[in-house]
Amino acid sequence: VSAVPANNVGDACLASLRALGVDVSVVRRAGERLGVYFLENGANQRPSRVTYDRAGSSIASARAADFDWNAVFADADWFHITGVTPAISATAAELSIAAARTARERGLTVSCDFNYRKNLWKYGKRAPEVMRELVSFATIGVANEEDCQNALGIEADVNVEGGDLAHEKYRALAEKVLAAFPKLEKLAITLRASHSADHNGWSAVLHNRKDMLTSRHYDIADIVDRVGAGDSFSAGLIYGLRTYRDDGKGLEFATAASCLKHSIPGDINRVGVAEVEALMAGDASGRVKR
Amino acid sequence: VSAVPANNVGDACLASLRALGVDVSVVRRAGERLGVYFLENGANQRPSRVTYDRAGSSIASARAADFDWNAVFADADWFHITGVTPAISATAAELSIAAARTARERGLTVSCDFNYRKNLWKYGKRAPEVMRELVSFATIGVANEEDCQNALGIEADVNVEGGDLAHEKYRALAEKVLAAFPKLEKLAITLRASHSADHNGWSAVLHNRKDMLTSRHYDIADIVDRVGAGDSFSAGLIYGLRTYRDDGKGLEFATAASCLKHSIPGDINRVGVAEVEALMAGDASGRVKR
Amino acid sequence: VSAVPANNVGDACLASLRALGVDVSVVRRAGERLGVYFLENGANQRPSRVTYDRAGSSIASARAADFDWNAVFADADWFHITGVTPAISATAAELSIAAARTARERGLTVSCDFNYRKNLWKYGKRAPEVMRELVSFATIGVANEEDCQNALGIEADVNVEGGDLAHEKYRALAEKVLAAFPKLEKLAITLRASHSADHNGWSAVLHNRKDMLTSRHYDIADIVDRVGAGDSFSAGLIYGLRTYRDDGKGLEFATAASCLKHSIPGDINRVGVAEVEALMAGDASGRVKR
Amino acid sequence: VSAVPANNVGDACLASLRALGVDVSVVRRAGERLGVYFLENGANQRPSRVTYDRAGSSIASARAADFDWNAVFADADWFHITGVTPAISATAAELSIAAARTARERGLTVSCDFNYRKNLWKYGKRAPEVMRELVSFATIGVANEEDCQNALGIEADVNVEGGDLAHEKYRALAEKVLAAFPKLEKLAITLRASHSADHNGWSAVLHNRKDMLTSRHYDIADIVDRVGAGDSFSAGLIYGLRTYRDDGKGLEFATAASCLKHSIPGDINRVGVAEVEALMAGDASGRVKR
Amino acid sequence: VSAVPANNVGDACLASLRALGVDVSVVRRAGERLGVYFLENGANQRPSRVTYDRAGSSIASARAADFDWNAVFADADWFHITGVTPAISATAAELSIAAARTARERGLTVSCDFNYRKNLWKYGKRAPEVMRELVSFATIGVANEEDCQNALGIEADVNVEGGDLAHEKYRALAEKVLAAFPKLEKLAITLRASHSADHNGWSAVLHNRKDMLTSRHYDIADIVDRVGAGDSFSAGLIYGLRTYRDDGKGLEFATAASCLKHSIPGDINRVGVAEVEALMAGDASGRVKR
Amino acid sequence: VSAVPANNVGDACLASLRALGVDVSVVRRAGERLGVYFLENGANQRPSRVTYDRAGSSIASARAADFDWNAVFADADWFHITGVTPAISATAAELSIAAARTARERGLTVSCDFNYRKNLWKYGKRAPEVMRELVSFATIGVANEEDCQNALGIEADVNVEGGDLAHEKYRALAEKVLAAFPKLEKLAITLRASHSADHNGWSAVLHNRKDMLTSRHYDIADIVDRVGAGDSFSAGLIYGLRTYRDDGKGLEFATAASCLKHSIPGDINRVGVAEVEALMAGDASGRVKR
Repeated sequence: VSAVPANNVGDACLASLRALGVDVSVVRRAGERLGVYFLENGANQRPSRVTYDRAGSSIASARAADFDWNAVFADADWFHITGVTPAISATAAELSIAAARTARERGLTVSCDFNYRKNLWKYGKRAPEVMRELVSFATIGVANEEDCQNALGIEADVNVEGGDLAHEKYRALAEKVLAAFPKLEKLAITLRASHSADHNGWSAVLHNRKDMLTSRHYDIADIVDRVGAGDSFSAGLIYGLRTYRDDGKGLEFATAASCLKHSIPGDINRVGVAEVEALMAGDASGRVKR
Repeated sequence: VSAVPANNVGDACLASLRALGVDVSVVRRAGERLGVYFLENGANQRPSRVTYDRAGSSIASARAADFDWNAVFADADWFHITGVTPAISATAAELSIAAARTARERGLTVSCDFNYRKNLWKYGKRAPEVMRELVSFATIGVANEEDCQNALGIEADVNVEGGDLAHEKYRALAEKVLAAFPKLEKLAITLRASHSADHNGWSAVLHNRKDMLTSRHYDIADIVDRVGAGDSFSAGLIYGLRTYRDDGKGLEFATAASCLKHSIPGDINRVGVAEVEALMAGDASGRVKR
Repeated sequence: VSAVPANNVGDACLASLRALGVDVSVVRRAGERLGVYFLENGANQRPSRVTYDRAGSSIASARAADFDWNAVFADADWFHITGVTPAISATAAELSIAAARTARERGLTVSCDFNYRKNLWKYGKRAPEVMRELVSFATIGVANEEDCQNALGIEADVNVEGGDLAHEKYRALAEKVLAAFPKLEKLAITLRASHSADHNGWSAVLHNRKDMLTSRHYDIADIVDRVGAGDSFSAGLIYGLRTYRDDGKGLEFATAASCLKHSIPGDINRVGVAEVEALMAGDASGRVKR
Repeated sequence: VSAVPANNVGDACLASLRALGVDVSVVRRAGERLGVYFLENGANQRPSRVTYDRAGSSIASARAADFDWNAVFADADWFHITGVTPAISATAAELSIAAARTARERGLTVSCDFNYRKNLWKYGKRAPEVMRELVSFATIGVANEEDCQNALGIEADVNVEGGDLAHEKYRALAEKVLAAFPKLEKLAITLRASHSADHNGWSAVLHNRKDMLTSRHYDIADIVDRVGAGDSFSAGLIYGLRTYRDDGKGLEFATAASCLKHSIPGDINRVGVAEVEALMAGDASGRVKR
Repeated sequence: VSAVPANNVGDACLASLRALGVDVSVVRRAGERLGVYFLENGANQRPSRVTYDRAGSSIASARAADFDWNAVFADADWFHITGVTPAISATAAELSIAAARTARERGLTVSCDFNYRKNLWKYGKRAPEVMRELVSFATIGVANEEDCQNALGIEADVNVEGGDLAHEKYRALAEKVLAAFPKLEKLAITLRASHSADHNGWSAVLHNRKDMLTSRHYDIADIVDRVGAGDSFSAGLIYGLRTYRDDGKGLEFATAASCLKHSIPGDINRVGVAEVEALMAGDASGRVKR
Repeated sequence: VSAVPANNVGDACLASLRALGVDVSVVRRAGERLGVYFLENGANQRPSRVTYDRAGSSIASARAADFDWNAVFADADWFHITGVTPAISATAAELSIAAARTARERGLTVSCDFNYRKNLWKYGKRAPEVMRELVSFATIGVANEEDCQNALGIEADVNVEGGDLAHEKYRALAEKVLAAFPKLEKLAITLRASHSADHNGWSAVLHNRKDMLTSRHYDIADIVDRVGAGDSFSAGLIYGLRTYRDDGKGLEFATAASCLKHSIPGDINRVGVAEVEALMAGDASGRVKR
């Protein structure tokens, strides 16, 4: 559920989503433009750089009342949202909260990636003012260690730049977040050790208020494109939790799926379930399949 | 010697071979189509994936009687064939065996890369039924550790996925193969340690019934394209054995040439003899030549 | 200040320089062609290969008398030249020396990158015959360890291929050069450890007749394009020395700027001052900026 | 309804169809390969050249019994097929006839483009043997003047090469076809005057057993890509007849839609209904819309 | 003088202008984004289609007070503006009028292309309300027959779609406009006969309150890209009037320059003065220059 | 027979020739560079523009004594040369004449395209001084109306720019040339009517001292690339005269082959004999072949 303009660019956007099997029937066609971003691909010591061009986009001007939520949620049992949407405009923030509240009232599972983007959030509110309300409707949370701090205002004694990935500190952070949001049933935190722009470590933890599970760790030495890895993790977690009905397997599916995203150009994770499951099963040798 | 269709696609194929100095005068122009393959390039934990599209190709329907073997072998002293051709169809298997037998009868050196492809071999025979007969005509064998097992049915106590490259085990494997095929004078085995899709170790051994020689080991950390490395090894071995008349130098030439293939896009090893010899001589620093 | 032909190719060259903010008003439009080069991009054990195509270029046939040096140096306080220009032709060598002499006479700072290219220097003189005169006008020298030996004929007991980068040996080499050229106030030497075509170590030293300063060391594991790194170092050094008025910071700026060049395709260092300063300040994690 | 292989190539094919809003849920995933073709784009006196590579494709080996026709036709009221499918193989011919017969029995409108391709039809039957049976199930026929002759064996006294497009001769031809196939209610014939590879005249007639309607004539002087024009005509006719319930408007929609196809690269007619209707309404001036 | 955002996209925009020799020193770096447009290239009966994506652009939010007009006009003697800028937003309209008024007060020649774009003008004012004030400051006007009607509300009895280009009617139109705007000294009107998307006739008239001059007529049968033709006409007219000091030659230069634009891809007229003058001199044969 | 440098660029050049079946065994590998040219593709009123970059090329510095003419002409019976080679340098002129003289002495048929290029001929001689000697060895001449005048200094009363292609004038011109060069047995003149950069008329005449034959005339309305048309005519004439042993058919083959070149991108005429013969036989309708 989104809004894209009623022009050729919006048509092309929806065509690319339909190609992937996404049902776009409840996407609203209104507003002036499709938000885009420009990406300069980094390498080694040079970071990738995203220049957002989202001002005035259809989703920035969409309002909750524009959508027929009965239709939107008619056959749905899960609603996922990220912190990028409420960062765009005041109306997008209201829309995000209304959508999450409505989904929750209708009994859908609500998941939220806290996703903090410092180049957005320019309309006058600080992220925690909005995000804390949004997250209050979620039962599943996804974050990295910076998001907790910046999006929710919950302090974390972890040092990302230095690669300090001590798991006890992540447990403490997860428990702080879970304490602050009593409806949250599970919180997953992704752990990225950034050795260089194209060499990262990648793993994740999931706290379900009982255990803190730790995923396999992946060393990704030749990143092709890391944009979209976070969304791939969320998508993998939703698929994994629904499919396996097991937090550990769900976490491993999410981590393996998003690990593979680093080897795919573009911001869509063009891998299949079989590929993810092969990696979960331990086949990381990269031998040619033929 | 091959078969390609008598249409524009076949013309383009032969033009690309002629550009490289290959004599295509005995290639037969018949059949319905040129086999192709689709390659998704992997990276890191994600393997490259080859989708063969070889059904109904000209070589799949070619028959031994279609070729004038006197003309084919007129000025030749070496015939090389791989396990890919007999894997395509029953007629291609018969053709492969007829070609090798005829070459042998005319006194050519016959070399064979055992090359096993599990996505081929669909026409009803298991690989060893055919390959054991084909290899019986060869004096030079080329393989990797899986090929021996899968193409010839000779068991190898080596664990590729785990990177276990113990040379004693390779000696044992080589000796099993040499015992099974008494006409084989030399057997070369390539050793690939697959750390990830773009980071491999690469080396080879050659058993000449007297010694087992071991090549230099190359660490290839940023593979550009590994498709064609096996064929580059065979081509390098043929060139090396003929040029140096020394098994050790032949093996080193083959290993260095195929090492360089990993840095060339496409499946043709576009390097020259001088480049290979520079690497054989130890210049692996990659300093810009200008 | 240069010469490019008065045709469409020369126009395109100047347009690309103007785009970057370079003042091209004193570039002479004469001669027959623009020199170009062809680059085969190496990887792993395979070196990149530059095929120069500079014969008959405008700069090769330009003469000192063709330029109005008063106009050329009117508002300038720094003149930089490299050893590539005098390597092209006898007239280019005379032109290089005349330009450096004139710049010096007018009180400009003169810097010179000793830059030795063995595939040039074909017009009958050995490099030291020319370069020693050219360098005699310089107050700032830039080199790598091979340049000192090949361009100036000053022997260095350092072994590049082997990666032996002992700093004491570099101090000795720098002092030999400074002794031979009494007007040189500072000499910077870049240190490249070439592990493979796309994995290099990168650092530099600067000797100012008082201290030998050593830059931070960068490990560049996935080189995108290393052509232009030397020029980026010189450009960074000029900027750094002028901006910070501090040899240590100038050296670090030059090293960081040229480190980043390895991650940029093409031979122009398309990075901004802010990016270089972020790396100087220690941010080498490559985390996406967004 | 079709068959594509259960591999990555088949996946990509279906994704591109889904993008356009085509329901692919009844496409069968089986067989060895996806048929492709190679196109050399002509211009002026040089014709475009299609090299078919369809041997061994999934649709060539599909059989009527492979499909669950109840599911295929569940929500359908129209079935369209062309003469290309039965030209590929004997089984494809049987499949085509079975599909058309079944569609007819279930009360769907059946339309058929007689489409003759001389480079296909290689499996032993002449086109009329098969096509006459196939067309016997159709109520709507589509053809060009050559198709009637070659696909159905009905002689036409029209000279395509010479651009002789006299409408009385087309009426006579249409009436011959309608007489031969009593269930045909309407027959549309496209008229292409081929002045050169990129300059064609384009129009069509439709005989509904009462009148012969003639469409507007389009002069297309700078053809971008004419492959797919015939299919665009059929698609436009189906849309037009269903939407307007008027043979004249249906014919004009089909002719205008397929006229626009000549200005679109690729073999898919990426235009919208509004564009077609603007052309039907007479706006052929090509003025920029902004 | 314009406004572009202070980010990488704005940098790239200015670099491309600097490449062409445009002085960008007074361009303001502010606002959120660079306006862009998407172009679908038409052919034959299919029009090109421009999808504007200008909402929220830097120029849309720029205000007159943001600019230091003394600096902007310091060394200038001519100011040109088009009707596209005031169409974007209320502030852009105020800015446009302020710029034109200030230029006029400082004694610059002010030219204005009336340029009407129906997909802009969405902020609540009708074009004539704004454009009549803007044009009141101009001494040179540029228009096509539609612009006069739509941008100024002055009715024209000319029929563009039908290609009716009777010059007497253009004289009447020109005189109506000159009567309405007494400060206008010259009015140029371009005449486009749109036979198809890639075949246009092109000419222009210029009324200088004494004579109505008529340019040579060009038949452009294979348009490469017509976007930018109007701006090329204005640029040519400014150059021509300033260079030749002769209305007739100025008009011919403008018409020839913009004629050539139709043969250049992209929206910038990458031709030189010599090429335009060759066409003015009658060389329209298109013979290869070599 | 030519000279290309002994580097990667020369290798690539020869590979592209070998691909087309050209025997390159007598090409000399020497000199400094491969001549290239830059082409801006024109359209409509805008001419294509060739910027030659041939200074210092291998052929410019090659000398007659560098070639072993016995080997060069060993199995040859025809030698063809154009006026471009002697235009490049004094040594190239000597080489051209020596080659033609030697070929003639050995009994080869010598053909010469008079080909005048005004942007070459810069080394101090006027074209006729050299070309008259070169042509004195030829038995077959090829030219356009400008070449006769500019390359040979023989005046022609024909007006190319104006499209005046009166055949009587061409007869007179041909007879003047044949009178001046008594060994010439046949002279072919191509006639290009240049309506615009992409719309030309194309035909040719051939005078064999008995008759003046006139080819079919082709109207080429959408030229793809006309560079190489002249060389395609010569190649076609050589093929046609040798194959058909009939001047009329030879002329028609040459004209048809070079007509098709206008529809092929690049400067090589990638068409086959069957395509040319189909056009000779009258099939110019451009209907898709499939």
